[in-house]
Amino acid sequence: MAVCPWEDRVALEDLLVAFAHAVDSLHDLDGIGTIFTDAAVFDLSGVGFPSLTGRAAIRQFYANTFDVMAAHAHYLSNFAVTSYAGDKASVRTYVVGMGRYKAGGGITMRGRYYFDVVRTPAGWKAALFSMDMLIPPEVESGGGA
Amino acid sequence: MAVCPWEDRVALEDLLVAFAHAVDSLHDLDGIGTIFTDAAVFDLSGVGFPSLTGRAAIRQFYANTFDVMAAHAHYLSNFAVTSYAGDKASVRTYVVGMGRYKAGGGITMRGRYYFDVVRTPAGWKAALFSMDMLIPPEVESGGGA
Amino acid sequence: MAVCPWEDRVALEDLLVAFAHAVDSLHDLDGIGTIFTDAAVFDLSGVGFPSLTGRAAIRQFYANTFDVMAAHAHYLSNFAVTSYAGDKASVRTYVVGMGRYKAGGGITMRGRYYFDVVRTPAGWKAALFSMDMLIPPEVESGGGA
Repeated sequence: MAVCPWEDRVALEDLLVAFAHAVDSLHDLDGIGTIFTDAAVFDLSGVGFPSLTGRAAIRQFYANTFDVMAAHAHYLSNFAVTSYAGDKASVRTYVVGMGRYKAGGGITMRGRYYFDVVRTPAGWKAALFSMDMLIPPEVESGGGA
Repeated sequence: MAVCPWEDRVALEDLLVAFAHAVDSLHDLDGIGTIFTDAAVFDLSGVGFPSLTGRAAIRQFYANTFDVMAAHAHYLSNFAVTSYAGDKASVRTYVVGMGRYKAGGGITMRGRYYFDVVRTPAGWKAALFSMDMLIPPEVESGGGA
Repeated sequence: MAVCPWEDRVALEDLLVAFAHAVDSLHDLDGIGTIFTDAAVFDLSGVGFPSLTGRAAIRQFYANTFDVMAAHAHYLSNFAVTSYAGDKASVRTYVVGMGRYKAGGGITMRGRYYFDVVRTPAGWKAALFSMDMLIPPEVESGGGA
């Protein structure tokens, strides 16, 4: 594959970090929207969640999520550019995604994010997002006796 | 903002990693000292710890910490340059900070570090450090029945 | 030390990420083999495992490991180039290494990887690999009543 110049490598890493930052804000739906193309496919079917198409559907997914979450933390690591062709690329990152519910309890997901991204006049955007698990999810009870 | 050249981006990442490495050494107060400017503000008020001013106070904070800790691990990720202006910059990183006490038990903190850094003749140094939490701290008992 | 150009820094990070990716595949022995030189020393004595010499022995170690593991996740962070001299380098990374056994239960190791790497016609390869712990390993029982 073509060599990914450092400016693009940094921009791609920044895109993924910005995605996690918006998800962890628990409110920044516009920030999430800017990560994706208009017609992006947001496919969480690999981890038992829906597959959605289009920025409006992605925003609604996070609006629903933010309604029920009290805290979020999505730690990204093991960043890799797995293909690069100038105006499009594929990137993979590991993720530890933690959530705490307003109703109590929480979940920790340890897996990988996959993004197919395209260069647009407004910078790199995700056209396809998917995820798989590395370790079975860990559910924390909200308990108390 | 101005584009952060790769040399500076790498140097900024290296500064944060060197900070974590010194903190995890459990002894390297000189290493911690070199991270900060003489008059640095070290503000942990966002996570219920003191706000300190000056390298001597920061060293003393870690001297006290090292006295009581048996193990440390500070995992940094989601590195972002949030502002850059040639001779100063702001950077953010996620952190999972784990400590184990000599007296038994431990704590895990999941949050974010924020650094305002300045370019000096001796390289980039932190002039302001602060932190917030993403997930409530997790306390492990030292217990045993 | 000499300044590590961005192409080498990225290549070194990619090497470590590729190592974790192969380990987490639970099958890709060829992928693991390409990380190391023919005569690489793979020294896990610092964490209570054997020290091995040569690619064949390293492959066998992972063949044995893959036989008993049901899931793997190795999260790398805090990447640092600790020495660089054009055709050889030393790099360090933090690791959270999680394993789940087919027989039930699992282990989480929180430590650091150290690689001495050399430039070869086929890219950077690891000539020496070692590890230390930051936090004592955490063993999860395979539970049941």
